[in-house]
Formats: sequence, C-alpha cells, structure tokens
Amino acid sequence: MSGAAVGGAFADARLLGTDPTAIQGLAPQPRGERSPFEAPQRVPALNIVSLTPLEQLHGTITPSDLHFERHHAGIPQIDPERHRLLLHGMVERPIVFTVEDLKRFPAVTRTCFIECSGNLNVKANENSTPQMLCGLTSQSEWTGVSLRTLLREVGVKPGATWCLAEGSDAAVMARSIPMEKLLDDAMVAYAQNGEALRPAQGYPLRLLLPGWEGNTNVKWLRRLELSDAPFMTREETSKYTDPLKGGVARQFSVVMDARSVITTPTYPKQLEPGWSEIRGIAWSGRGKIVAVEVSTDGGKTWDRASLQGPILPKAHTRFGLPWKWDGKPTELASRAIDDTGYVQPTKEQLIHARGPGNQLYHLNPVMHWIVESDGRVLYKAEPWA
Amino acid sequence: MSGAAVGGAFADARLLGTDPTAIQGLAPQPRGERSPFEAPQRVPALNIVSLTPLEQLHGTITPSDLHFERHHAGIPQIDPERHRLLLHGMVERPIVFTVEDLKRFPAVTRTCFIECSGNLNVKANENSTPQMLCGLTSQSEWTGVSLRTLLREVGVKPGATWCLAEGSDAAVMARSIPMEKLLDDAMVAYAQNGEALRPAQGYPLRLLLPGWEGNTNVKWLRRLELSDAPFMTREETSKYTDPLKGGVARQFSVVMDARSVITTPTYPKQLEPGWSEIRGIAWSGRGKIVAVEVSTDGGKTWDRASLQGPILPKAHTRFGLPWKWDGKPTELASRAIDDTGYVQPTKEQLIHARGPGNQLYHLNPVMHWIVESDGRVLYKAEPWA
Repeated sequence: MSGAAVGGAFADARLLGTDPTAIQGLAPQPRGERSPFEAPQRVPALNIVSLTPLEQLHGTITPSDLHFERHHAGIPQIDPERHRLLLHGMVERPIVFTVEDLKRFPAVTRTCFIECSGNLNVKANENSTPQMLCGLTSQSEWTGVSLRTLLREVGVKPGATWCLAEGSDAAVMARSIPMEKLLDDAMVAYAQNGEALRPAQGYPLRLLLPGWEGNTNVKWLRRLELSDAPFMTREETSKYTDPLKGGVARQFSVVMDARSVITTPTYPKQLEPGWSEIRGIAWSGRGKIVAVEVSTDGGKTWDRASLQGPILPKAHTRFGLPWKWDGKPTELASRAIDDTGYVQPTKEQLIHARGPGNQLYHLNPVMHWIVESDGRVLYKAEPWA
Repeated sequence: MSGAAVGGAFADARLLGTDPTAIQGLAPQPRGERSPFEAPQRVPALNIVSLTPLEQLHGTITPSDLHFERHHAGIPQIDPERHRLLLHGMVERPIVFTVEDLKRFPAVTRTCFIECSGNLNVKANENSTPQMLCGLTSQSEWTGVSLRTLLREVGVKPGATWCLAEGSDAAVMARSIPMEKLLDDAMVAYAQNGEALRPAQGYPLRLLLPGWEGNTNVKWLRRLELSDAPFMTREETSKYTDPLKGGVARQFSVVMDARSVITTPTYPKQLEPGWSEIRGIAWSGRGKIVAVEVSTDGGKTWDRASLQGPILPKAHTRFGLPWKWDGKPTELASRAIDDTGYVQPTKEQLIHARGPGNQLYHLNPVMHWIVESDGRVLYKAEPWA
C-alpha cells in the first residue's frame, strides 16, 4: 500500500510534509478521489483479463474499478438507451425490454462473488502475489431484477428446460443455463456497488448466476432464449470443460467449489516477529463457508480461524487468525469448508481425481506460503503435474 | 442516469452508434472507469459539504467517491507513514500506534451508515431532489480494529468514563465519547468498501461509531484521551445541540433516529402510468429497521413495503413497494419503524416536541412527494416553522 507515486489534486507542495492541523485542507469535490499514497491497480494480462489486487483489499467488497475483468473480444461500448434485452423462445409472450423497463420491476439486491473458472496461475513462482495467483475473483453488491419476475412476465411454456444467454460483445459470448438455476437465484443486474455496472462488468446489463463460473454470468446481455435442450455453444464444448482421467471431459461444470486464499502475510509482505493476524478470504459457489482452517506449520496442525459475519451464501467471507511469529522459518496454508461438508482439496487430491496433464479450469488447491527466517514470505510454487 | 456527457477513453467515434458485436471492444485497464453514459456526482455546497446522489443509487453501498463529506477546515493531506494515533489519559500504558501497527491487530468489518446530524435542507423547494434534501447520509463496508482491542492493549484505569477523540485536520475536530460506546461497537477504521479510506472520509484513520451522528465519527483521527468527564468541546456546546421548548437545549444527542427517504419516484423523475416500484432507503441508529410503510394517497392509508435482506443493524436498508399509477394526481410518503418500536415522526410531531424556531439538527420528518397528472414528481416543500 505504500510506495505509490504522489500525484493528482493532492500533490500540492505546500501541503506535503507539513503539520496537517496548520493549514486549511482541500475543498469538497463532485467525486472523492483516492489518497495519492494509495494506488491499488488491477494487472491486465494477455489483453483478455485484468486481476484484482486481493492482497491490498480489506473486508469483502471489491471496489468496482478493481473488479477483475475477463472478456472474449474486448469491452463493448453500449448506449443504454439503444440497448435491448429480448426474452423469447419457448415462452407465451416474447418481450423486448429496455433498460428502463427492467428498472420498473421490483429490484433485488445481493452480495456475491464472481470467479473465473480459470482462476489459478499454474506457472506461478515464489514471487507471485495472490493477485497474480488467483486475482480472478471479486465481489460486489449487485442489484437488478429477478429472473423469476421476468419469466413470469413472458410465461414459460411447458418443456422449457434450458436457456441461451447471449451477450452483445464482439464475441457474442453465449452459454446454456438450466431453467432450474434461473428460477433459483438468477438476476439480470444493472447495478454494482450502488451504481450502474462498470463497462468491464457488463454495462448496461449482465446475467448474475450466484456461485457459478464467471463466464455464465453473461455480460452485455442482449438475449435469453428458452429451449428444451442446451445449445452446445463454443464456451461449453471446445472451452470450459474439465479433462478427466481416461480421455474424457466433464461438461457444464459450472458451480465454483469452496476455496480460500491467504491475503496477508503473502509476497511481497515483509513479516516481523511477534503478533499479527493471518487474514484472507474464503468462498463457495454451493453455499456458506462454515469454517476456514489455517496451518502455521506446513499442514501438520490446523487451527480454526474466526469468520467475519454476516456470512452470506456464495460470498467472499473474511477469515482471520492471530498468530505470533517466533522468527523461525515455517509454512502457512489455509483450507475452506462449506455448508455441504466439502473441504478444499490439496493439489495432490485434485491431480489424483483429474489425472495429470493440461489442467485449465476449476483448480482450487490449498495454497502454501513459505516464511523465511528473514521475514520474506514466498509462494510455495511447485510444478502442476 | 441518462443525459451524461460522453467522454473519456470510451469516446471513440468509431465505437459510437455502431453494432457492438461488429467491432472489437476496448482492452483491459488497471482500473475500470465508469461508462461515459453515467456521471453520478456529489454536489459540493458552502465549501464544507458534498451531498450523495441518493436518487441515482441502488442497493445499499455508496460508492466511496460518492460518499457524502463534511469537514470543518477542509480535507487534510496526510502521509500514512508519518501519521500516529496516541491513546492516553486514564490508561495503564499510553501507546502511540502507527497505521501499520493497527493493521496487525485482528480486523473487524461491518457495514453501516454515517449520517450528518444536520441532514435536512429546511429551505428546500418543489424541485429539490433527495440528494439536495438529505444527501448527507451514505453507507460503506468499514474495516479496522475494534476499540475493545485497543483499550485492552493500553489498560483502562478505573473511573475512566469518557474519551476525547481528536482529528488532525486544521479544525482539530474533537468530540467527547462515552466509554460505554467505545466498548460496545466502535472501531478505528482504516478501510472503506474494500480499500483504504478516501481522504474525505478520514484517511488514513477515522473513528467509527455505528449509528451516531457523523461528526462523532472523528476523521483523520490522531488522539484518544480517556478521562472521567466529557471535555465540553465546541462541537458539543456551541454547536450540535438541539434547542427545545423553554429556551433549553439537548446536549450529546448523538444517536441518529429512524428515518426513511423515497429515492424513486422523486424529482426530477417523470412518472409514467402503470406499474413501477416505489423504492428508497430506511435506517436507524438504534438498531434494525423492522418495517417501512408507504402511502400513495398522501398519508390516508399505508402499505408495508418489502425490505431487502440481509437487514443489518444501524444500516441503510432498501425498501420497495410495487405500485400501479392510474395517472391521477396523488401524494407519496414513507415512514420507517425500527426494532425499538420508534416510528419516524411527521414534521408536525417534531415541531410539537421541539417547539418552532431555529431547528438545525436531528430532523427526520416523514417527507411527501406530489405526483402531478402530467407525471411530474415534486417535493412537497412547506416552510419549517
């Protein structure tokens, strides 16, 4: 958090280095900018993603401008007055909604995470940060209209069991969603953390499927088509399937399993002997986190961390464990347990279940951090194989 | 939300007015800016405040750059590495904490509102918006260290019943806080909505007293001094007291009473006949909101709005009531009820209790909105007397 360049409206030489009580402060502004001493940033990569700086964040909300992004053909610029959402297919009354139409319906709000299913850098090294390792998860308070409300409006025909959700980006990103999920807790979201969605998160409309892999939460949503079968789009056939042992692959593996990540102390933190708190976030696409266990001896023993309430289902949950470091080398790790009884697996368990090879999606191993005697904290990077 | 100027990185003529699926979108960036079609702003006033655009917001979180501000001598610029918090007075071991020291303690997170006790524009007119009427309330997810933890660290001497909280702005803003509140739910906050506090909200440290009037949540906090009596600072003697009937005044009226405000439809919204949702926020400094009642006939009858969960204590709570407008003139109003049984009063009830005259602080009357037959929605502005 330190070391940021000093700039912007605050970079007034008269104010720097003086007693702040000795000089009139700055005037109010239409928007309140960050302190010049704070410069959290996402890291863009491969021209298709940017990663959230998890180790610089507190609490559970990700500031909207730091929410991770992933797109398949860049961020479209959409005029909300021209944008339309078509709800059609196996329905009684196909309807084209404007954004303003959707805002007339009863609004629903919920806080949940969205995580990309490709959220593990398997080529990490000891100097990898949580941001670079698994910064493709973020959390917002989302507001929109429930899919149940919209489906009641159009009338679902008997036999409709699937729905195509299609975006209006240049990739025309599309996924097949079972009706069961739409009727459970899906929403068409138009707001994020109190205001309109950011363009990188789907402005003006996105599908929100709490707990499901990021790309099913289709951004720039323009069309929902009900059908009696999945549509077998590119993103559920050639991509976003999980290779298993024996040359087969798992398809429609859409729920994000429980996971945890320590956010402090992690690289590049310099640890000092004595008390501090080991902190991090845990989440599960299946429900609530019921426990996070932290090891400070490389996995030999585990302590229960405290969880910060309110604990919401399908949401980043903060955990913390006070720890007195004695200055000796050791190894930290965390594992999450959700309310289905699922325990976050080790890397070895994942490889045993899936087989070695080109692991791409849904990797949620317990991660280890090495504490050196000089206080450096390094990611325990081992080849994925 | 419409009508915003188009500018910034998105203002590329190639992209405007085209089919967004026909052109590669924009690349990922370190920070995700707003859509050029959205331009929510605070309104600065009198060089001492800026007001949150309540009618443009959704859900319960106020984006950090739109959180209201109020300061008594401008916003100081503070280098976090030089900043210190002194905890002294009637303690066993006075301690000077750095910001980094505070981050080593177990962190606590909670979502709550902060409202200025002067949050009512008594000179409003029919074209006043919720922002201009009562935009001095905002909500964040705050993270910091519990006062209980810090007081255990310094050791409270017997007889210590009050504490001076002092800011390091040029006003050296100071308030006396009873120990009871510090031991209940106070924190020294260093983060807001996931990241460092904004300078206008007290960077790098502020006192957070959930449910208490804004100025007691001392910003740019530098000193906490324990004592056996209140300190009788300027902000609790000549200011921030409530004149009552008979020439007396109420002092230390620090808890914010229950209140609600409709955020849509309100001026300048143009209402159209048919179904829409009357929405707003309600809150209480004493606990949870248990009900919000909405009248669509000027107060003759009241319907229970639905409340959006999770309902948190001392927090903005969203309410909504689906309503079919028949196109005839009418009048809207809302009133909040909290879990102490307190019912938001009418203006007449407030004047009866306080007496007429210079009402300044802690005004939370039921507010009325007039719906004209042409769909205009106007604030029912009546002189405060």
